[in-house]
Amino acid sequence: MPGALSTDLYELTMAAGYHAAGNDAQASFELFVRELPTGRSFLVAAGLEQAVGYLEAWRFTLDDISYLRSLPELSGASSDFFDTYLPGLQFTGDVWAVLEGVPVFAGEPILRVTAPLAEAQLVETALLSIVLFQTLVASKAVRVVEAAAGRSVVEFGGRRAHGPEAALHAARAAYLAGCQATSNVEAGSRFGIPVSGTMAHSWVMAHMDELTAFARYTAVHGARSILLIDTYDTVAAARLIVSAGLRPAAVRVDSGDLAGLSAAVRAVLDAGSLQETKILVSGDLDEHRVAALVASGAPIDGFGVGTAVTTSADAPSLSGVYKLVAVERESGMVPLAKLSPGKRTVPGEKQVWRVARSGETQRDVVATADELGPPDGVPLLRRLMRRGVPTESAPALDAIRDRCRTAVAALPDGVRRLTDAERFPVELSPDLDRLSRRVGGRDDQGP
Amino acid sequence: MPGALSTDLYELTMAAGYHAAGNDAQASFELFVRELPTGRSFLVAAGLEQAVGYLEAWRFTLDDISYLRSLPELSGASSDFFDTYLPGLQFTGDVWAVLEGVPVFAGEPILRVTAPLAEAQLVETALLSIVLFQTLVASKAVRVVEAAAGRSVVEFGGRRAHGPEAALHAARAAYLAGCQATSNVEAGSRFGIPVSGTMAHSWVMAHMDELTAFARYTAVHGARSILLIDTYDTVAAARLIVSAGLRPAAVRVDSGDLAGLSAAVRAVLDAGSLQETKILVSGDLDEHRVAALVASGAPIDGFGVGTAVTTSADAPSLSGVYKLVAVERESGMVPLAKLSPGKRTVPGEKQVWRVARSGETQRDVVATADELGPPDGVPLLRRLMRRGVPTESAPALDAIRDRCRTAVAALPDGVRRLTDAERFPVELSPDLDRLSRRVGGRDDQGP
Repeated sequence: MPGALSTDLYELTMAAGYHAAGNDAQASFELFVRELPTGRSFLVAAGLEQAVGYLEAWRFTLDDISYLRSLPELSGASSDFFDTYLPGLQFTGDVWAVLEGVPVFAGEPILRVTAPLAEAQLVETALLSIVLFQTLVASKAVRVVEAAAGRSVVEFGGRRAHGPEAALHAARAAYLAGCQATSNVEAGSRFGIPVSGTMAHSWVMAHMDELTAFARYTAVHGARSILLIDTYDTVAAARLIVSAGLRPAAVRVDSGDLAGLSAAVRAVLDAGSLQETKILVSGDLDEHRVAALVASGAPIDGFGVGTAVTTSADAPSLSGVYKLVAVERESGMVPLAKLSPGKRTVPGEKQVWRVARSGETQRDVVATADELGPPDGVPLLRRLMRRGVPTESAPALDAIRDRCRTAVAALPDGVRRLTDAERFPVELSPDLDRLSRRVGGRDDQGP
Repeated sequence: MPGALSTDLYELTMAAGYHAAGNDAQASFELFVRELPTGRSFLVAAGLEQAVGYLEAWRFTLDDISYLRSLPELSGASSDFFDTYLPGLQFTGDVWAVLEGVPVFAGEPILRVTAPLAEAQLVETALLSIVLFQTLVASKAVRVVEAAAGRSVVEFGGRRAHGPEAALHAARAAYLAGCQATSNVEAGSRFGIPVSGTMAHSWVMAHMDELTAFARYTAVHGARSILLIDTYDTVAAARLIVSAGLRPAAVRVDSGDLAGLSAAVRAVLDAGSLQETKILVSGDLDEHRVAALVASGAPIDGFGVGTAVTTSADAPSLSGVYKLVAVERESGMVPLAKLSPGKRTVPGEKQVWRVARSGETQRDVVATADELGPPDGVPLLRRLMRRGVPTESAPALDAIRDRCRTAVAALPDGVRRLTDAERFPVELSPDLDRLSRRVGGRDDQGP
């Protein structure tokens, strides 16, 4: 769990400024993604459970404060800021968010925080990195799962993830997006995700010969064994398994022409009465290679995917931001927008309404938070925290996974396509559109 | 610190297999990067301190073991494996590694572990993710620092990093590669890295007007203030600062034509007797944009870089692997190689010798670990752990940073170029070349 120091210094210089001015006005910030990555047509919201957990536990420890007090960069802050304000801080805000597993699109708020300005600001950095990273991975993993067209997909990219914590949360995000299992044991332990494992080439190499390696492994793991057969000669290894009378659950091919090899191996296994032995493939796979293998008709039962998913290799970040959309003034909450060139935002607290017809999602309407959306629409943002306290316990990960599968299946086919996907229609409600035009001029806010 | 469960399940199925067979042969694994990412000409080794820390603390807790015992996937393991072996495990191996901050190239071992097979295997996944991630970020950051040509570079990409832990370690790697500071407060606290911060657009928007926002901030942070001036009209904001008599340390421009705006802002500041006020720029910068801004002659004093560095956006992973290179047999340590198509490895424990002439690095020679390298060469791999114990205390991060600067400066100019760089010559020693040919055939190992 990240601590309160997991933040940018400017959040603290601003907090010191708000504190000095006695400004504890409520403010609303919305987290959203400006643009979908190239070639992507939707995102899958994820990471909310960790975000809420972070906010619940959010405190500055005495050690934290002692470090902050030592910083020349905060020498302008008052002693009251260090002695009283920071030690007493906890998150007292409201959080609204799109539930995990739900598809979202560019410009739609995924999460909204309403809290005193400094509080809402201090949690920005960690909220962004938590929510954006899991959303990034879930959005990539769902594409691989779609490409696999019902065959199993196992995530085993922890080794290439951006450190062990990234590996852990990538496993969670990949699973909720439809992967069947992970190789990451900690993810299994922490989140109850099914774990899966085979053997490494080193196992084969460490033994005097391949047969000894297979036999020793099978002696321990029996009918659960998944044997890696590409260390020397893939098809010869399949013949070896048959002739030795081994009956592994599956074999794995990790290199070479996966379509051709899987067909050759299938033939060997079938001829050796090992019709039940499955064929898994791996090796720098992504959604496009998986789709091509599926289209080729190769007799592949499952795919192991690594780096492509855990780093979202083609798009390793989202253009996600956390922007002030309203602030409390004497007249009440006033909607605000940022007007910098190329970085304009839509003002005001929002709700996203998703409209479906006959089970197919048709369009989204982004509306102001206090208007009634379209009569056939369902609001996506739900209140997850009220005055700093979670409103409900986190759902089971399998329930999130089911929700994701159902919601993705309800998207239009054209939007789900891996390439040349259609753009899903996202509209502003008339009220929000009017508000956006009204707040569009400098007169509303500028000097 | 990642725990022992931060591993792939197959490491545990193999460990159970080695344990069942009573196989505690010593084995050597080497961690190296197969190919440099497109457009890159060298890497900077990083993450070793965290890797050693992980190995020192590496233990399976009783909770870990209780989870593992519950797994059907490990039901073939003996009760002795759970009752005695796992609880007693700690890392007893030797670790050799290239020191942090030192440039490395494709195919060169960055780290070597020699330990009983199962131990060496169980730590694979976390070692890879720890070392590869920091090496990835340091290798990207050094390019931005080179592009900045002496101007300061501040890393502030934590929000787009792959979670808070990735943000923390990205800040460390970016600093050792030459960034001047980070916005990440935890990185400041944990690693003593200088921290830097400005203000967000939300600060400006939350006040009734820009002048009030600037004045309130300056009232607290005085001469240290860095004012963000692009929320509404960048040049107008600079004029406002002058006319209000504010004297900020710097202004930051985060959008628009950074070259043109910085020149216009410089003129306004200079005319207003604010020659000492620096100009910082930010906004989706990478090494190429920084180089272009520097080449344009824009009066920019420093660059804030985010996503490009913390995610190594153009190459978000390294083709890093951890391969068995030798195993203990009755005759002693026997060199091994993996022969899978496209994934061949060079057998045996290695040392890398770096040869310089007149202060310029000329070439590397990868040799067997026990041969004497070229007489004018310096060995890069140093023993960091002996029988599970660190051989020396970790160097100060600033010493690593100095080492990096010196070592990068000693690379040939052609290799340091940002684009169309020359390939640095890496040769195999005659002994290693002979060994590689000898172990090249299946006869040495195969069935």
